[in-house]
Amino acid sequence: MPMKNAFYAQSGGVTAVINATACGVIETARRHADRIGTVFAGKNGILGALREELIDTGPLADDEVARLRHTPGGAFGSCRYKLASLDDDDREYRRLIDVFRAHDIGYFFYNGGGDSQDTAHKVSLLGERLGYPVACIGIPKTVDNDLPLTDTCPGFGSVAKYVAVSVREAALDVASMCETSTKVFILEVMGRHAGWIAAAGGLAKTGRDEAPHVIVLPEVPFDEERFLAKARHAVDRGGYCVIVVSEGARYPDGRFLSDSGRTDAFGHAQLGGVAPMLAELVRARLGCKFHWAVADYLQRASRHIASATDVEQAYAVGRHAVELALAGKDGVMATIVRTSDAPYRWQLGDVPLERVANVERKMPKAFVSRDGFGITAAARRYLEPLIAGEDYPPFLGGMPDYAALPTATVPRKLDSFEA
Amino acid sequence: MPMKNAFYAQSGGVTAVINATACGVIETARRHADRIGTVFAGKNGILGALREELIDTGPLADDEVARLRHTPGGAFGSCRYKLASLDDDDREYRRLIDVFRAHDIGYFFYNGGGDSQDTAHKVSLLGERLGYPVACIGIPKTVDNDLPLTDTCPGFGSVAKYVAVSVREAALDVASMCETSTKVFILEVMGRHAGWIAAAGGLAKTGRDEAPHVIVLPEVPFDEERFLAKARHAVDRGGYCVIVVSEGARYPDGRFLSDSGRTDAFGHAQLGGVAPMLAELVRARLGCKFHWAVADYLQRASRHIASATDVEQAYAVGRHAVELALAGKDGVMATIVRTSDAPYRWQLGDVPLERVANVERKMPKAFVSRDGFGITAAARRYLEPLIAGEDYPPFLGGMPDYAALPTATVPRKLDSFEA
Repeated sequence: MPMKNAFYAQSGGVTAVINATACGVIETARRHADRIGTVFAGKNGILGALREELIDTGPLADDEVARLRHTPGGAFGSCRYKLASLDDDDREYRRLIDVFRAHDIGYFFYNGGGDSQDTAHKVSLLGERLGYPVACIGIPKTVDNDLPLTDTCPGFGSVAKYVAVSVREAALDVASMCETSTKVFILEVMGRHAGWIAAAGGLAKTGRDEAPHVIVLPEVPFDEERFLAKARHAVDRGGYCVIVVSEGARYPDGRFLSDSGRTDAFGHAQLGGVAPMLAELVRARLGCKFHWAVADYLQRASRHIASATDVEQAYAVGRHAVELALAGKDGVMATIVRTSDAPYRWQLGDVPLERVANVERKMPKAFVSRDGFGITAAARRYLEPLIAGEDYPPFLGGMPDYAALPTATVPRKLDSFEA
Repeated sequence: MPMKNAFYAQSGGVTAVINATACGVIETARRHADRIGTVFAGKNGILGALREELIDTGPLADDEVARLRHTPGGAFGSCRYKLASLDDDDREYRRLIDVFRAHDIGYFFYNGGGDSQDTAHKVSLLGERLGYPVACIGIPKTVDNDLPLTDTCPGFGSVAKYVAVSVREAALDVASMCETSTKVFILEVMGRHAGWIAAAGGLAKTGRDEAPHVIVLPEVPFDEERFLAKARHAVDRGGYCVIVVSEGARYPDGRFLSDSGRTDAFGHAQLGGVAPMLAELVRARLGCKFHWAVADYLQRASRHIASATDVEQAYAVGRHAVELALAGKDGVMATIVRTSDAPYRWQLGDVPLERVANVERKMPKAFVSRDGFGITAAARRYLEPLIAGEDYPPFLGGMPDYAALPTATVPRKLDSFEA
């Protein structure tokens, strides 16, 4: 294959380590400057391609690229934007190919969740069909840990670590004060469809009666009476109760506990506020003093307490994606393959995008404790390695020294396009 | 003075570094074993003295004591308990003296906020009057930073750092996504009476148009229209708006915003959540997609991102309290005295408890920007040194290795007492 340029885009909710993946892509491409020319990044993800807003990463000094590794958020911008169905309307897909052709782009690295893997798959198919083949490589990213066929999704390990550490710290606070103050503390965490993040809170537990005492998972239909009994038991026994609740917790009829009736750009229900809702239940029914916290974006942006394993894997899948493309692969996603739990060992792999696209990985039933309010030893074996190690960003004057990258785009070559 | 035992108690809301103060007290007392015998810690603070529930710290190995320095929460338990007025009913104060006499306690180290300094002052007076003089030394502690006559209160610097770091991280997340997703992000932080903690969020700001764009302080009566105009301006100009709001934010008539009587998006009564309340206002009036977070206990328990300056000062006031007592002082609080802003220089001092007791330090007007929604250069000069430096706890298997101390108490010598 002759020298071609590359296009890299971030998609969907950003994470504490998605820029480490960008770093892996760019640094690896630079080591293969004989075969990969310019690495363009999409300004605001795939929108950058549709709008022909391409950021040239070439002028970035090596040390600026290196700083991506420790910077949270999406350095080039990300977006929540789902392309129209290829069968209904291939206009957007054709535009992508037009833009790629105009900028001599032969490699497409798409860093996102299930929807993004689907898009990458379709671009691969269409490019072939239109006589402009593009090596399309998916790179996994989602704090929700819901992609199939990879041991984990970069981004998840750091959220998991943030939640586990926060639960342990808050539990020490509540335990100190419960004699005269708060007896029930509720932390709301992300996880719309799967309880991976809430389950990670269980890693804070150091013994049978220790916090967290209750984990409310989306996988387990919410039973108010059993929930209250469990919380009351913890308060009676140890003086306090720490609860981790997933934003995706649902009633048996499928309604979210936190259903606000609003939807986001993808038509998904916009959630938020299950912690105060449970707090009100605890107040009304148990009469306990309570506090609640909603971690929201803090959890997925918390690069300062990132998992070293997660950072390393995020970088590695970026590097591997480039290597896959250079090896002639197309239509695959880079994956993480676990070969051993303890000691944790993993290697890189790849799977066809068509097997990944739009398949959601749920938490196995074997990870949920019998009573539905905790995690099992099997879950711990899976989760523990993912939060292992610390990878602190550099600090300057007491604050993390995060990179701020230029977002100027290269001149357009095509007409504008209404995305 | 002959050899006497010491009593140390933690009071009120715990912090990420209050145990560093305990560590300073115990380690320093151990270095003066010729004059200080046993250091007893009150189980659940002053309640431990009233109930004669004294934890003997003697059996703790030196390395166990050292681990207090990096462990958040209150290792021996704290409480929210205000003694009855000495003038109305001196029964509780007499009980304290009885317990101190029974256990040969000649030193009382009380680690807390304004109420605690008042209690320490009165115990000092009463001991003298009852013929059982006790050297009473107050040790400052409050995340609210509201004690007078000390440059800062240990505990505050670490909350300030947590909030500033969290704001910067969340802002990078929101900035990445604002094109198609959340445009307004609101973080609620502690500070019922003073805006010190919310003000610290301003340290995340790196330039005029950077986050946080709006800080809502309790010191500035909330003006809904000006708030909305400010938020709209930020969204129009940079595409997004990050807001830090103090739980103590108030309307001009003095009502808390969180006591507004409003119901949230799903019809439940608002539970002290000013962030969701402002989010609803933003949605209704600006029509922006929003997210909100409530840090709650996470902010004051976050030892993993503690300020090294704060940890050092927390330890130092504990050490200094013991040294003051050994120097014959009584009825004073250990203080931190700033001698230079940049480079930050400080030394230890002491002030009479009667000057401290029940005086609340407000944030100076000169720290609030002209428009009321930000902080000034003077505020930055004051705040920046307090978040300087990192002091990471040791980690084990991906989790902070915090101490769990025994809470067994020594045998009682007195009749029980109904506190």
